[in-house]
Amino acid sequence: MYTLSDYLLDVTKYLGSDEVFGVPGDFNLQFLDHITHRHDMKWIGNTNELNASYMADGYARERGFATFVTTFGVGELSAINGLAGSVAEQVPVLEIVGAPTTKVQHNGGLVHHTFADSQFKRFINAHEALGLKATFLTKDNAINQINDTVRYIYENKKPAYLVLPTDLVALPVNNHLKANIPHLFESKQTDVSQSVETITSAIKTAKKPVIIVGHEAQRFNLGDAIEGFSKHNNIPVATLAMGKSTVSEEFENFIGTYNGSISDEAINRFVDEADTVITIGAKLTDSITGGFTQSFGPEKTISLNFDNVTIYGERLTTPYNFEAIINQLAATNLNQNYDKVVRPELTSNELKTTDNKLTQEFYDRALQHFVQGKNTLVAEQGTSFFGLASQQLKANTNFIGQPLWGSIGYAFPSALGSQFANQKDNRRTVLSTGEGSLLLTIQDFGVAFKENLTPVIFIIENSGYTVERVIHGETEPYNDVPQLNYDTIPHAFGANDEQYLFINVDTEKDLVNAMQKANDNPDKLIVIQANMGVMDAPEQLIKTGQLFEAQNH
Amino acid sequence: MYTLSDYLLDVTKYLGSDEVFGVPGDFNLQFLDHITHRHDMKWIGNTNELNASYMADGYARERGFATFVTTFGVGELSAINGLAGSVAEQVPVLEIVGAPTTKVQHNGGLVHHTFADSQFKRFINAHEALGLKATFLTKDNAINQINDTVRYIYENKKPAYLVLPTDLVALPVNNHLKANIPHLFESKQTDVSQSVETITSAIKTAKKPVIIVGHEAQRFNLGDAIEGFSKHNNIPVATLAMGKSTVSEEFENFIGTYNGSISDEAINRFVDEADTVITIGAKLTDSITGGFTQSFGPEKTISLNFDNVTIYGERLTTPYNFEAIINQLAATNLNQNYDKVVRPELTSNELKTTDNKLTQEFYDRALQHFVQGKNTLVAEQGTSFFGLASQQLKANTNFIGQPLWGSIGYAFPSALGSQFANQKDNRRTVLSTGEGSLLLTIQDFGVAFKENLTPVIFIIENSGYTVERVIHGETEPYNDVPQLNYDTIPHAFGANDEQYLFINVDTEKDLVNAMQKANDNPDKLIVIQANMGVMDAPEQLIKTGQLFEAQNH
Repeated sequence: MYTLSDYLLDVTKYLGSDEVFGVPGDFNLQFLDHITHRHDMKWIGNTNELNASYMADGYARERGFATFVTTFGVGELSAINGLAGSVAEQVPVLEIVGAPTTKVQHNGGLVHHTFADSQFKRFINAHEALGLKATFLTKDNAINQINDTVRYIYENKKPAYLVLPTDLVALPVNNHLKANIPHLFESKQTDVSQSVETITSAIKTAKKPVIIVGHEAQRFNLGDAIEGFSKHNNIPVATLAMGKSTVSEEFENFIGTYNGSISDEAINRFVDEADTVITIGAKLTDSITGGFTQSFGPEKTISLNFDNVTIYGERLTTPYNFEAIINQLAATNLNQNYDKVVRPELTSNELKTTDNKLTQEFYDRALQHFVQGKNTLVAEQGTSFFGLASQQLKANTNFIGQPLWGSIGYAFPSALGSQFANQKDNRRTVLSTGEGSLLLTIQDFGVAFKENLTPVIFIIENSGYTVERVIHGETEPYNDVPQLNYDTIPHAFGANDEQYLFINVDTEKDLVNAMQKANDNPDKLIVIQANMGVMDAPEQLIKTGQLFEAQNH
Repeated sequence: MYTLSDYLLDVTKYLGSDEVFGVPGDFNLQFLDHITHRHDMKWIGNTNELNASYMADGYARERGFATFVTTFGVGELSAINGLAGSVAEQVPVLEIVGAPTTKVQHNGGLVHHTFADSQFKRFINAHEALGLKATFLTKDNAINQINDTVRYIYENKKPAYLVLPTDLVALPVNNHLKANIPHLFESKQTDVSQSVETITSAIKTAKKPVIIVGHEAQRFNLGDAIEGFSKHNNIPVATLAMGKSTVSEEFENFIGTYNGSISDEAINRFVDEADTVITIGAKLTDSITGGFTQSFGPEKTISLNFDNVTIYGERLTTPYNFEAIINQLAATNLNQNYDKVVRPELTSNELKTTDNKLTQEFYDRALQHFVQGKNTLVAEQGTSFFGLASQQLKANTNFIGQPLWGSIGYAFPSALGSQFANQKDNRRTVLSTGEGSLLLTIQDFGVAFKENLTPVIFIIENSGYTVERVIHGETEPYNDVPQLNYDTIPHAFGANDEQYLFINVDTEKDLVNAMQKANDNPDKLIVIQANMGVMDAPEQLIKTGQLFEAQNH
C-alpha cells in the first residue's frame, strides 16, 4: 500500500535525500519505519537534534536539499537553532516533526513532550515566529501541503518545517502521485527581457564595474553564469566570504574574497576604483564586510538579489526572476570594451616550511596548499573562518562557512553532512575548527565512526575561545574551555585503530607532514590537532574584533 | 559605579545563584565581566547552551532558583528546549540573553546572529509563543522589568527570559536599590479562610480519602505541610513520579509512588478503595499515570493546584493562594477519626546478590539500597526513570526526573547542576542514565572534570534506545546508537587519573562492589558502566510502552 509517508519520502528522495538525518522519538518511530524499509535511502541516526540540523544544513549545501526528522516538542526545539541558521543563510532543508495523533490533539491529552496544557500549536507557532514556512499536516489536505512545502524549498532555497501527526503516517494515498513528482518542480517561465534590458543599460553607464557575488548565487548554482557574463565583458569578479566558491577561484577574472576595508589591498583596489558595483545574491552583513566598511554605497550599486533588485538605489519593478536574469546575463555581451582584467597574485606558490612553532598565519597558507579541487573546505566561524576565507581555493573546491548566523559548533556536524553528500563522488571534506567550538557538538565523532566517514579534521587547539578573546575579555575565565585529550577522543567515541589517524602538530614541519599522512590515508578519518598560541589570530579577525567591540557600546 | 548588571546579579544572588551557567558570545561578554569580577559568584562555562539550560534546571530544582546566560539568536535558540522543559515542569530558571545594542537594533543593522533582515524581535517572539514570560529590557524601565521578572519566577516557580542589550550592561543605577531586594519577595497576604473552609468541608464528606502529591508541591516546598496534614488526620499519602521526594518516603503515612493501574498492587489498593482523592499540585500526565489509567475521575477528586482548585469537578472561586492553603491545612485537624494508615511494605530490606548477569530488576533494587538521605537521585527518562521512580527513597533524598517534558539527554547536565547546588552541603548526586541518552549531552564531562565535581554516574549500556525499542521498532536500526568506549571517556574529556574511577559491571556482584567503591571514594567522580540486555526494561516501562504504542494510531 502506498502511503503518505512513502509519498513524502519519494519527494525528498527526488530532491536529493539519499540520506535522512535525525533522532528517533516516540512520535516519529512509525514514520522512520518507512525510511528504514526503503532500499534507496539510508537513515542516519544523529547524536542529538541540533547536530542533526547542522548535518542536514551541510548536506544541503552540497546536494541542494536535505531532510531531517525530529520528535514533537523536545526534538524540534533542540534543533531550532540549526534550522534558524538555515533560514539566515538560505539553505534548503526540510524538517519533518513527528507529532501526537490528531485525536490526542483534538482531545487535549496531557501527553509527554508537551506542557500538559492541551495546546499543541505552541511549537509550530515558535517556528513561525522565525519566519519559517511551517505546516501542520491535515488528513484532508496533506498532499497539497507537502507539495506546497517542497516547492517552496525548491524555489526559494529556504528551509521549511512540516508536522506529521502519527495517525497520518500510514494514510493510503494514490500511488500515481509518484509519477507526478518531477512536474512539481518545473520552472515557471517569466519574461524577464524588459528587466534584463534595464539592468544591462544600467551596467553600460559604468566605466569600471566590478561584480561581487554572494551566497544566493551559490544556492541557485549561478557560478557558471556569472563567470560567463564576466568573461564576455571583462568584468572582474570578487566573492563575499558568504558565497565563497560560487565562482571558481582559478577563474581568470576572479580577484579574491572581498571583506570591506580589511580585504587584501589588491582586491580593495578593484572595488574602490570601480564606479559601479554589481552585487549578485549578496547581503552585506557585518562579519563579511569588515564590520560594514565596504567602500561603496547604494548609489554606486546594482544589487541583483533573489527577491529584489535595486539599481543605483532605485527598485526594479518590471517582471523579475533571479535565476532567469543571471542566466540571460551569462550570454550577454555589453560591447563596452572594458580593459582585460589583470588578476592579482592571490597566493604565493611556495610554502616555505621551517621547524618554527606553528602559527595561524602559516596554518592558513598551508591549508590553502592542502585543499584541492576534490575537497570541500568547512571553516568554523572562529579563527578558522577568518583565516581561511581570504585564502584562494582551487577550482572545484567547495567552501562552507556560516558567517551570518555564526553558531559555534556548527562546522563539525556540517562537515560530516558534507562528507555524507560527497561520498558517492569520492570527494573528501576538510574541516578546520577550534577546540572551543568543537566541544559543543563533539559527540558526532560517534556518527563519523559508526558510518565510516573519512574526512580530514583540523582542530586548532588555542586554549579557549580565541575569537571571543579578540573581541573582549582576553584573559577572562569565561573564555576558557575544558581542555580535552583529543588523542583519545576517537577511541572513546567508538573508533577502532584501523579507522583513524591522530596527529599532534606543534611546528610548521609537523603540519606539513601531517597533511602528507592525510593524503596517504584517504580511507581513514584524520584528526590533526594543531597547537597554537592563545592569542594567535588571523589579521582579519583581529580587525573585525576591534570593530565589533567598538559597536558593543 | 553600581550598574544595571550589578543589580540584576544581586537579585539573582539573593535568590540562590552562587553559580551562573552559560556560554559566552560576543553580545554577552561585557555582562559576563560583571559576574567574573564578583567574589560571591562563580561563572560556570558550559559546553553548549542546551547543556547550560539543563544544568540550570537541575540547579534550580535543588536551590529554588538558577540563572544562565546565552548570546543572541544562536545561543538562546540552542537553549530553548531546555527552557521549555523548565516551563513544562515548572522550574524557576532565569535566562539572560545578551543582545545587540539598542542603537544597532534601531538602525536595523545587518549583524551576525540575526537573519540580516533588520528584525530583532523574532527570537523573543519565538519564546513568547512558548508561553514564557519574556522581556526585552529598555533603558527607561529596566529596573521595573527586572523586578517584575524575578517576582514572577519567585511567585510562580516558573522560568522567565530576559533580553539585555549590550548598551544597558553598564548603565548606572542607584545603589540603594540593593537594600530593597528582600522586599521584592515579601509574600502578599491573601485571606484564604473561606477557601480553606470549603476545602475542609469537602474533605470531611469523604470516608476514605487519599492524598496524591505532584510536582507543584515540590516546587513550593510543601512536603512538611502535607506530612503534617496527613499525620493529624490519618490520610495516606502517595506521590506521583513527577513530585517524587516531596514528602519523605520514610514518612509513616507514605504509601508509595502512584502510576495509574500499573502501580504496585499495595498502592493501587489505597487509591482504588479511596472515595476521595486529594491531589496537591499534580498534573495527571500520561507517563506518570500508566497512560491515563488512574482509577479516579474528577467527580471523586479534590484537586488543589497552584493556579486552580476543583472540588468534585466544581471550580473554587473564593480567594485562593496555593502555598497559604496547604500551609493552613498542615495544622488542620478534621476530627474524622480515619483509620490509622497501615503503610505497605515498599521495599525488601535484603539485597541478595549473586554472580548472575546484571538485570534491570536487580539494578533498580540495588540503587534503592545504595541511594542515601544525603543524595539526590537523578533518573533519565528511559529505563532509568521507569525503574527507579517506583523504588522507595530514604528520608532527605531528592529525586529529579523529567517525565512530562521527557527530553533525552537532560539528566546528565541536570545531575551536574544538582551537584553544583549540593556541593556546599556536602551532598552527592547520583545519576542513572542510559548510554543512548547520555550521548546527547556527553561533553559535560568536560565541565565535571574542570570543576572537580564528584557525582556517581551509572550508565546503563543496553545497546541503544531501549525505551524506544519497547514502544516501537525493537530491531529497527533507528534505535541503535554509536557504541562508545566509556572507560576512556573521562580521560578524553580531560580528567587526570586521580579525578575519577571507572568501573565496568556485568554481574550483580560487580554492581554491589562498584557501589562500595563509590562510597569509598567520595572525592572522585565515579562512572559505573552497567551492562544489560538490549530488551531488559522495567516492568512499568514495558506496560507504558504498550499503552503509548496503542495510542499512536
